[in-house]
Amino acid sequence: MAQKQSWDHNRRAKETKLEKASSLMQGKFVQTSDAKELLETLIDSGDRVVLEGDNQKQADFLSRTLETVDPEKVNHLHMIMSSISRPEHLNIFENGIASKMDFSYAGPQSTRVSQMISDGSLVVGDIHTYLELYGRLFIDLIPNVVLVAADKADRQGNLYTGYNTEETPVIVESAAFKDGIVIVQANEIVDQLPRVDIPSDWVDVVIQADQPYQLEPLFTRDPQNITELQILMAMMAIRGVYEKHNVQSVNHGVGFNTAAIELLLPTYGEQLGLKGKIIPNWELNPTPTLIPAIESGWVQSVHSFGGEVGMEKYIAARPDVFFVGKDGTMRSNRAFGQVAGQYALDIFVGSTLQIDQFGNSSTVTNGRLSGFGGAPNMGSNPTGRRHSTPAWQSLKPDDDPLAKGQKLVVQMVETFGSNKRPVFVDHLDAEDVRKEAKLANVPIMIYTEDTTHIVTEEGIAYLYKTDSMAERKQAIEAIAGVTPVGLRSKSETLKDLRNRGIVALPEDLGVKRTDAKRSLLAAKNMEEIVEWSKGLYNPPAKFRNWS
Amino acid sequence: MAQKQSWDHNRRAKETKLEKASSLMQGKFVQTSDAKELLETLIDSGDRVVLEGDNQKQADFLSRTLETVDPEKVNHLHMIMSSISRPEHLNIFENGIASKMDFSYAGPQSTRVSQMISDGSLVVGDIHTYLELYGRLFIDLIPNVVLVAADKADRQGNLYTGYNTEETPVIVESAAFKDGIVIVQANEIVDQLPRVDIPSDWVDVVIQADQPYQLEPLFTRDPQNITELQILMAMMAIRGVYEKHNVQSVNHGVGFNTAAIELLLPTYGEQLGLKGKIIPNWELNPTPTLIPAIESGWVQSVHSFGGEVGMEKYIAARPDVFFVGKDGTMRSNRAFGQVAGQYALDIFVGSTLQIDQFGNSSTVTNGRLSGFGGAPNMGSNPTGRRHSTPAWQSLKPDDDPLAKGQKLVVQMVETFGSNKRPVFVDHLDAEDVRKEAKLANVPIMIYTEDTTHIVTEEGIAYLYKTDSMAERKQAIEAIAGVTPVGLRSKSETLKDLRNRGIVALPEDLGVKRTDAKRSLLAAKNMEEIVEWSKGLYNPPAKFRNWS
Repeated sequence: MAQKQSWDHNRRAKETKLEKASSLMQGKFVQTSDAKELLETLIDSGDRVVLEGDNQKQADFLSRTLETVDPEKVNHLHMIMSSISRPEHLNIFENGIASKMDFSYAGPQSTRVSQMISDGSLVVGDIHTYLELYGRLFIDLIPNVVLVAADKADRQGNLYTGYNTEETPVIVESAAFKDGIVIVQANEIVDQLPRVDIPSDWVDVVIQADQPYQLEPLFTRDPQNITELQILMAMMAIRGVYEKHNVQSVNHGVGFNTAAIELLLPTYGEQLGLKGKIIPNWELNPTPTLIPAIESGWVQSVHSFGGEVGMEKYIAARPDVFFVGKDGTMRSNRAFGQVAGQYALDIFVGSTLQIDQFGNSSTVTNGRLSGFGGAPNMGSNPTGRRHSTPAWQSLKPDDDPLAKGQKLVVQMVETFGSNKRPVFVDHLDAEDVRKEAKLANVPIMIYTEDTTHIVTEEGIAYLYKTDSMAERKQAIEAIAGVTPVGLRSKSETLKDLRNRGIVALPEDLGVKRTDAKRSLLAAKNMEEIVEWSKGLYNPPAKFRNWS
Repeated sequence: MAQKQSWDHNRRAKETKLEKASSLMQGKFVQTSDAKELLETLIDSGDRVVLEGDNQKQADFLSRTLETVDPEKVNHLHMIMSSISRPEHLNIFENGIASKMDFSYAGPQSTRVSQMISDGSLVVGDIHTYLELYGRLFIDLIPNVVLVAADKADRQGNLYTGYNTEETPVIVESAAFKDGIVIVQANEIVDQLPRVDIPSDWVDVVIQADQPYQLEPLFTRDPQNITELQILMAMMAIRGVYEKHNVQSVNHGVGFNTAAIELLLPTYGEQLGLKGKIIPNWELNPTPTLIPAIESGWVQSVHSFGGEVGMEKYIAARPDVFFVGKDGTMRSNRAFGQVAGQYALDIFVGSTLQIDQFGNSSTVTNGRLSGFGGAPNMGSNPTGRRHSTPAWQSLKPDDDPLAKGQKLVVQMVETFGSNKRPVFVDHLDAEDVRKEAKLANVPIMIYTEDTTHIVTEEGIAYLYKTDSMAERKQAIEAIAGVTPVGLRSKSETLKDLRNRGIVALPEDLGVKRTDAKRSLLAAKNMEEIVEWSKGLYNPPAKFRNWS
């Protein structure tokens, strides 16, 4: 009956590769200078290769090494990467080492990604939200080789990923238990690890990197750049969303809008008597702008996707708040953070570059294919969710006996972006990008069906209350300012929408525009954040503009 | 500015508890006979306690021990459990040790759960799908103590969970890095583990159990109980769903309907020329009924939530298919399996006890509050998904330029259940249960919005093609047989629905009812499955009815 002769092809292929590499290896360890030859030996042409790199932490020694391998020996790789962040991530396509890419996010390289798709030098399998990409590692993108980064390895090959555990565990697991090869760059090789994050059984090769892995402080926002318009929006969000819906758990996207919310909690939030009443529980990278709220007792817990440069000592001194191991260092986890971000939170608050007349939003604009990151996952209504909280339940429609609540998904935008172009548009640039990049679907970050609120400097549109697409468009027009979309708004319609609670202007929320002053910020600059932290927060040099 | 005096309350509380327990501990190890005293020392009244137990694997030594603690010393526990499976899981509520429960599934105890909610002895926080409950462990249900089960521990406290890794890693992580206490029952304590699944750094206490943890073969279905009606439905599903939509990746619920599909692949599927064309990639516990398809070369990969009793040797001999560690044993992972099941699959095929006239389904029937398990997660359309596959894309509506595809969510049911009661009903019993149990929302397993197909012995309703609730109801009536719902179907309407491809009868799919014979099954009984496995599958005694 059986037709297949061998059932351990992958295991034998792995053994053969490791046998060939044995002259380079002492146990699991390989010399830094032998890294190129090692990759040429352990990676076969056509292999599916996961290269670690979310938006902050990069396995950059391994990616720089991969760029140098001989394309005669290694080619047609199918790369799987959370983030296309570094030049060599695309160079390997130009020089013939790789041919196909599945990814999530392409911040710094997004313009080049668009160009390379156009000229055919990059074939994209698909663009994903992070958690979706991790899921596929166990189904239809099971890797042959994974290239990951650790802080430290011990002599047995146990790994310490510490503070920036990030996506390392889920990537390693997908390969270690399916006869894939796990190759690790370590900043240091030591006798004794502070703790074990990944057991040595899961690891095949450890190489000491030529320098510590790249780490970017991407979640750090200097409060001195927060404008009074952003403070006004933050005040509206606190009153018209957080207080109104009794929000208890939250993820904030990256940006000054949400940084302003964080910095208003100990001042404006306190004035409103909201302390102890809203948002004790956070899923968030350890953003410095949260420090004043933590120090004021607003925050019970913060679980993090990854670390943030300069926050190490502060976190270590606040184990009641952050997830910290026995060794005193945080453990982050991007996969579990995204699970929590999807299923366990009341609210996601993000920002975007464009919102169309229907309420769909995208950060993909002409010439930039930036991908998705975690926003589609956290900014979507998880229809599998079954537990209810007051915030979730407050969005339940009252006309259906089988109805349930919904996650609050909030877009906070100024009506015009920093480039002076309108954020509200009739049609997303993403529609054109779809055609140019030959994507199956329009690369929308958050669909209008999932978007429950839009906050601008004009007011709040409570989209979840609208009962037709026509009404939804009217609600968006009402808060879209003097953009072409906003100019269609009629005063009679606005009056009606306000009466019915579908749109709220600042005055409807009891927010005075003249109160939106920078003096309301609990910290007005980085130096004040450091003070709040009692000197425990250590900002990276580029944020240190005081003496 | 700061108002909080201490930032390590949890850490000090943990140290104090462990200090009190020090007379019972040798390093991390505690005598079996001291388990009760240990729990009385390490668990404070009011603590949030996670007790491991999905539907198969149970930390039953620890749950039996917990039942014996003195309620004067330990009371008002808030229990967090995937599954309420054993009598003591509810006894601890009756005897005053625990007072609140958050859970996912209550199969064997579902009647008693209903009763205890009614009489007030059990307060339910909420009912969840598994992944949702895991997410909350990092946000608003962060545990004080977790009680988990391992196969083996070594002298340092490293854990081997092997084959049935299940939910142990995610539970342990939520406590180990937030100053919770991790207490492990181990079947064996050994000098050398086959591999490390969980590092000792994450573990506080190891106790050798009085007997190996309870493990149930819940995914084993004996083919001799598969009926010809189920075979007919399986034939329709293969032609009208899998082939039609070019399905590549799949999760099957537990049941004879999907077992029939598995057993028809090497026969009927082969006749149709579908081998190599459909479903190479599976997220599924290692069900014995999949063996003939694996042996015939249909299956490229299977990732599993947990293990299945008797499949150990077979899996170990098929590492190209299953996720197997270097030690030769499978590693399962319920959390990552659910991530993959939600985001990476083309199709979920499940079954249910009731479907209402609108297409909502529930296994909660009068007197039984069975909970949800994984079905809401896998049987929902993940609106954060951004990658497309042919199956997903085949459900994309063609009238909207911004549209995207959808996950196939299929309910396969006979129109009357094994209890002779109609599956299709006007209103779900769950609506009454909601009132009795004072739940916030009706406990629906899969909502009609997420349900794309219903397969019965009468035909297939392609619900995703309907464009109004009225039409959706008609499509359901058309395949609901002689149930009260089905009797409303009119022949003119049926004709129209068939013409428009919204309903297909067997003849529309080229399936002859007379071909649906048991002889089509690749294995007709357990003995034949063992033969297919070349003797590697070792069925539990209760499935061995040959000599």
